[in-house]
Amino acid sequence: MLDPVTREPVTVDGLSQIFSRECSKQELNFTDRWIDIPEPVRDLYKYYRSTPLVRAYALEQALGTPAHIYFKNESVSPVGSHKLNSALAQAYYCKQEGITNVTTETGAGQWGTALSYAANLFGMDSAVYQVKVSYEQKPYRRSMMQVFGAQVTPSPSMSTRAGKDILTANPHHQGSLGTAISEAVELARNTPEKCKYTLGSTMSHVSLHQTIIGLEAEKQFEMAGEYPSVIIACFGGGSNFSGIAFPFMRHNFLDGKNTRFIAVEPASCPKMTKGVFEYDFGDEAGYTPLIPMFTLGHKFQPANIHAGGLRYHGAGAVVSQLMKDSLMEAVDIEQLKSFEAGVLFAKTEGIIPAPESCHAIAATIDEARKCIDTGKEEVILFNLTGHGLMDMSAYDQYLSGNLINIKY
Amino acid sequence: MLDPVTREPVTVDGLSQIFSRECSKQELNFTDRWIDIPEPVRDLYKYYRSTPLVRAYALEQALGTPAHIYFKNESVSPVGSHKLNSALAQAYYCKQEGITNVTTETGAGQWGTALSYAANLFGMDSAVYQVKVSYEQKPYRRSMMQVFGAQVTPSPSMSTRAGKDILTANPHHQGSLGTAISEAVELARNTPEKCKYTLGSTMSHVSLHQTIIGLEAEKQFEMAGEYPSVIIACFGGGSNFSGIAFPFMRHNFLDGKNTRFIAVEPASCPKMTKGVFEYDFGDEAGYTPLIPMFTLGHKFQPANIHAGGLRYHGAGAVVSQLMKDSLMEAVDIEQLKSFEAGVLFAKTEGIIPAPESCHAIAATIDEARKCIDTGKEEVILFNLTGHGLMDMSAYDQYLSGNLINIKY
Repeated sequence: MLDPVTREPVTVDGLSQIFSRECSKQELNFTDRWIDIPEPVRDLYKYYRSTPLVRAYALEQALGTPAHIYFKNESVSPVGSHKLNSALAQAYYCKQEGITNVTTETGAGQWGTALSYAANLFGMDSAVYQVKVSYEQKPYRRSMMQVFGAQVTPSPSMSTRAGKDILTANPHHQGSLGTAISEAVELARNTPEKCKYTLGSTMSHVSLHQTIIGLEAEKQFEMAGEYPSVIIACFGGGSNFSGIAFPFMRHNFLDGKNTRFIAVEPASCPKMTKGVFEYDFGDEAGYTPLIPMFTLGHKFQPANIHAGGLRYHGAGAVVSQLMKDSLMEAVDIEQLKSFEAGVLFAKTEGIIPAPESCHAIAATIDEARKCIDTGKEEVILFNLTGHGLMDMSAYDQYLSGNLINIKY
Repeated sequence: MLDPVTREPVTVDGLSQIFSRECSKQELNFTDRWIDIPEPVRDLYKYYRSTPLVRAYALEQALGTPAHIYFKNESVSPVGSHKLNSALAQAYYCKQEGITNVTTETGAGQWGTALSYAANLFGMDSAVYQVKVSYEQKPYRRSMMQVFGAQVTPSPSMSTRAGKDILTANPHHQGSLGTAISEAVELARNTPEKCKYTLGSTMSHVSLHQTIIGLEAEKQFEMAGEYPSVIIACFGGGSNFSGIAFPFMRHNFLDGKNTRFIAVEPASCPKMTKGVFEYDFGDEAGYTPLIPMFTLGHKFQPANIHAGGLRYHGAGAVVSQLMKDSLMEAVDIEQLKSFEAGVLFAKTEGIIPAPESCHAIAATIDEARKCIDTGKEEVILFNLTGHGLMDMSAYDQYLSGNLINIKY
């Protein structure tokens, strides 16, 4: 990553102007293969981890596929998604460093809820900038964050320089993760000694925290006596994908395994399948370092799809490099197809999935259907990142025939 | 129970005009101490059971109480509440008996969601009458039922004789469990060979199905090396209370234990604390058998509190007799106090509780606070019947100061 002004590689000192020092160190740690999870964070994980690895027998049966479909159920966390894995770690590091206020952005609200909850656990105040379109589409996500004590502002807002600039240029701006990040970063920059910014995806340290998903799944597959041949995850900035994929990816290199890894994007925001690999900003205003990433451009305004967590212009540096090196694949999925998959999953497995997770399910169904023709018994693992109970308005729209596909 | 026309005790033949034959038998089985759970139902239970027994350390700490607070987390079921325990059993029995359609009532929607999901699993159609005020307050509960394939109608409706009569007498009737039961029963009565009615609470067979909660908790307490001295559950018709309490209650008689059992009602619908013990109908129209129960009268119209599952005029026959014989206690809780307790629980334990469960939490906090004065280390167990993620509008109202207490 490069400093946007000097074009020099960023340093821990530079990054820790906005992030906690420990996360900044992790971000730029290119040597240690393993970084331990602090004991207090492990203790908090015990509240909901390990999460179940579930064989989706009923979905297999409904499809008539010879494939074995497994999902890692991250929806059982207190806040309903995998986001808590990193929120607890980031909040812990901030608290250790004497921080009293944390700030962040949120799209659909999964990350904002996780950070609000984690900050409250450690006795810190939290301020969340929520993408305006999500704030309005899903008011109950805001209520959840408020129950956990967060201050929630729709972004772009007039409360920051960045927000004002964006609204001046476009008074009807619907917001994106890019605008919300700009506002949250600005807030943290203004009082760096007391307030830190936290990010829910894209950064390498977030992916690191999420690898607990795959590490657990690895042990659970051992117990099940199987090993995944295909691993599938929805893709916003890349943290849940990295979390479930990276621990297995090493075995492709070290132990001769041959697992395929598929990132699933929304058709309306396809940075991995239709973006370019170049240095770009992580936010709309250009406050972040320049990151080598697959990107649609930091000024790209994603369409108002319901999978708010996937409305992001860029991919994390590590996953981008892996994609560039053809060590993983990417597909994109239309909105209607994602909800069709989600409803089938709900009816068979009993869990209403988050719109983001619906994308992974749709790609899983595609792979499982291929097995009907080939007769191959693929072992498919997908990450159920969260439940969709705060997204029932989207399901309502889908069931009543009012949902549409949106092209890139 | 008495036949409303002949005033003779009801028979299995009579009951099975509306309920499945197996449930009718269970209802009138006064001799068998144990009734086995069918193997296919146990297999379905495996998807979410056993549910966790959780020590609420963070809540204890926030209160500064010497009490040990445990909760049985029934919110982890696919549909988010304990209701699925009985829905799976009832759907299974209907399917075994060649039934193709099931019908029911629902208040807040927890039971309706469970029945919709269970019916779909067994390939049956489901029709749910939802109390009108809940249907309007919580539209996303309806969406959930529709995702699972149910046909949902707000009650009272013009689709039944009972509904028409109620609306003719009172065009602005907000609905209650009593009106919805009348409509669902009428639908089942019209084609008894194909369609059966299912009930989510009150009846003894429903309590029987719910005893899995307490039976599991019993074994889990053994593992924890403790035994509950106080057991607390919210109280609508009595099924979750029975489910967690009855398995422990037997030890008061058989093994010299001295556990207290506390049913928690809303202050606006206090049948156990302010009702009378007499024969009364289970529904508003008077279709059901006459049940010996604590009741506020079957024409009682409960206030529009958010804990829709507790808006019921009567208590089940067995719990009513236990109350009459002073083998259990009851308290009532104001709406604001219940949400105050729910928010404290969410902030400490990370789970946003259903408004019904908030009542049990409020009573638990009262008991735990008493321990601060007495210094007694009570072991308190309460039933977390469900999560409140479909009830965020209620939390929203509470947090914004727009929620009020409603007197009886």
